[in-house]
Amino acid sequence: MTLETFLTETKSSLESALTQSFQQGVSDELTSAIHYSLLNGGKRLRPSLVRAASDLVRAPDGLWLIPAQALEMIHVYSLVHDDLPAMDDDDLRRGKPTCHRQFSEATAILAGDALQSEAFALIAGAEALSPRQIRDMVRLLAQSAGARGMVGGQMIDLASEQKTLTLNELSDLHRLKTGALISASLQLGALCHDSVDVEILARLARYGDAIGLAFQIADDILDVTGTTEKLGKPQGSDLAAEKSTYVKLLGVDGARSEALRQIDCAKNELTALKLGHDSMLWQLADYIIERDH
Amino acid sequence: MTLETFLTETKSSLESALTQSFQQGVSDELTSAIHYSLLNGGKRLRPSLVRAASDLVRAPDGLWLIPAQALEMIHVYSLVHDDLPAMDDDDLRRGKPTCHRQFSEATAILAGDALQSEAFALIAGAEALSPRQIRDMVRLLAQSAGARGMVGGQMIDLASEQKTLTLNELSDLHRLKTGALISASLQLGALCHDSVDVEILARLARYGDAIGLAFQIADDILDVTGTTEKLGKPQGSDLAAEKSTYVKLLGVDGARSEALRQIDCAKNELTALKLGHDSMLWQLADYIIERDH
Repeated sequence: MTLETFLTETKSSLESALTQSFQQGVSDELTSAIHYSLLNGGKRLRPSLVRAASDLVRAPDGLWLIPAQALEMIHVYSLVHDDLPAMDDDDLRRGKPTCHRQFSEATAILAGDALQSEAFALIAGAEALSPRQIRDMVRLLAQSAGARGMVGGQMIDLASEQKTLTLNELSDLHRLKTGALISASLQLGALCHDSVDVEILARLARYGDAIGLAFQIADDILDVTGTTEKLGKPQGSDLAAEKSTYVKLLGVDGARSEALRQIDCAKNELTALKLGHDSMLWQLADYIIERDH
Repeated sequence: MTLETFLTETKSSLESALTQSFQQGVSDELTSAIHYSLLNGGKRLRPSLVRAASDLVRAPDGLWLIPAQALEMIHVYSLVHDDLPAMDDDDLRRGKPTCHRQFSEATAILAGDALQSEAFALIAGAEALSPRQIRDMVRLLAQSAGARGMVGGQMIDLASEQKTLTLNELSDLHRLKTGALISASLQLGALCHDSVDVEILARLARYGDAIGLAFQIADDILDVTGTTEKLGKPQGSDLAAEKSTYVKLLGVDGARSEALRQIDCAKNELTALKLGHDSMLWQLADYIIERDH
């Protein structure tokens, strides 16, 4: 299967699963805001990583859709809250009004809150997973999302505005803010097998850590080289926000080299797992830094 | 044990457990905001209900502290977000500045988000619980907190401002907004036993539903009869906010009768479980409507 087919198929399966997961609700406004945010395009990178890792360990067909949906709910809730006026104050997300602009600020806060709960409800309610798998998945996802993961990283990010970070500080920030969920995606995919090898889990976690950093570096490069149309947000907006970026610290060429170095680290983990150029995880590693949006 | 000793002991055990759960963090500011909000007094009613239900089913000693902490984290996150300028815009909570007034709006949003993740991480990381108990507890807590529980209720509450609700609409709202977590408290306490009887669970859920409504009615009565000092917020603030309340629909006496009727329903469930006046759950039911704050 080509990478393109893999990404298209994953996106389509994921979006139809998400649509079904949110048919009912006690508040129509809340359901609309959740649908609007969850189904607002997106590359669905994290779900693709879950599926590729699940394929690697030969987990039962289709099980990956459970943690993939949960991850996407966590990711989307974090975007909805990140866009709020008190945070990044963004009006556009993927070329469309952000949740609080389309609905209201209160609705966006509550939609994000509900999405986080639903992520855990979805995993814990899955009949196809064993109690042990559910425990391991909830533990990993909750730790990756919380104060020592994604939210911790967002807090450091906010506190770092108008400061110049060192390269190590910037990497630590992104390892938490973006990397924690990306690394969790790989591990959650592997946990779809009910007795996954700990070495595979550890190598996938390190692969995820490396591509997570490469992903953020690529984002920083796209912010200065991409087009507003492709990005769905104004080009150069990170520069304008006086945030530390890899491009500011290393220049465009230096940032490109650092991204390639991270992708090499990621591929070393795959080589140790006897995976080559034709494997989906290898192709996904290349895609991370070659994408144009 | 007297009710007073039970409440004091529960509060003290819970607060020392919460203090230990949050010693480290990647961001000092986030950790401070979480501590500030979690340890800002409070009656600790939900933890007391968890403990009483856990005692009823003779669960292993101290296990109740796990779901009790998780519930309190969910409850506190909801208060922190509820106080935000885009929501109720409150400056005081229990007589002290609300989280966004003490820290910043962004910090309050992230502290709430992190608290929700930590609630699930705490349950899923508990070595003393079996995978099946963890699955059942996460499922129940996530469903009670999400779009078909607490957050759904908050959304309906926001949409109902400046509208006059019927008594049924008001009860439906509070059954979600406040009742879902109160009912979950009882069930989570019972789930501390690894093979709890389904009839006990169902009766505790109905007991919780009834005392949850009574709790809200008592709150509405206290809003007009309590003192600003005891309440920790301006007396009459719900009336001023043009919200529907039980007192507006039924008057103070009518609201008192309705609260007593709910407490009777709750006690009927206890009687069916062969519990009498001396049981802690019975005393807690009376306390719900007799408290002065």
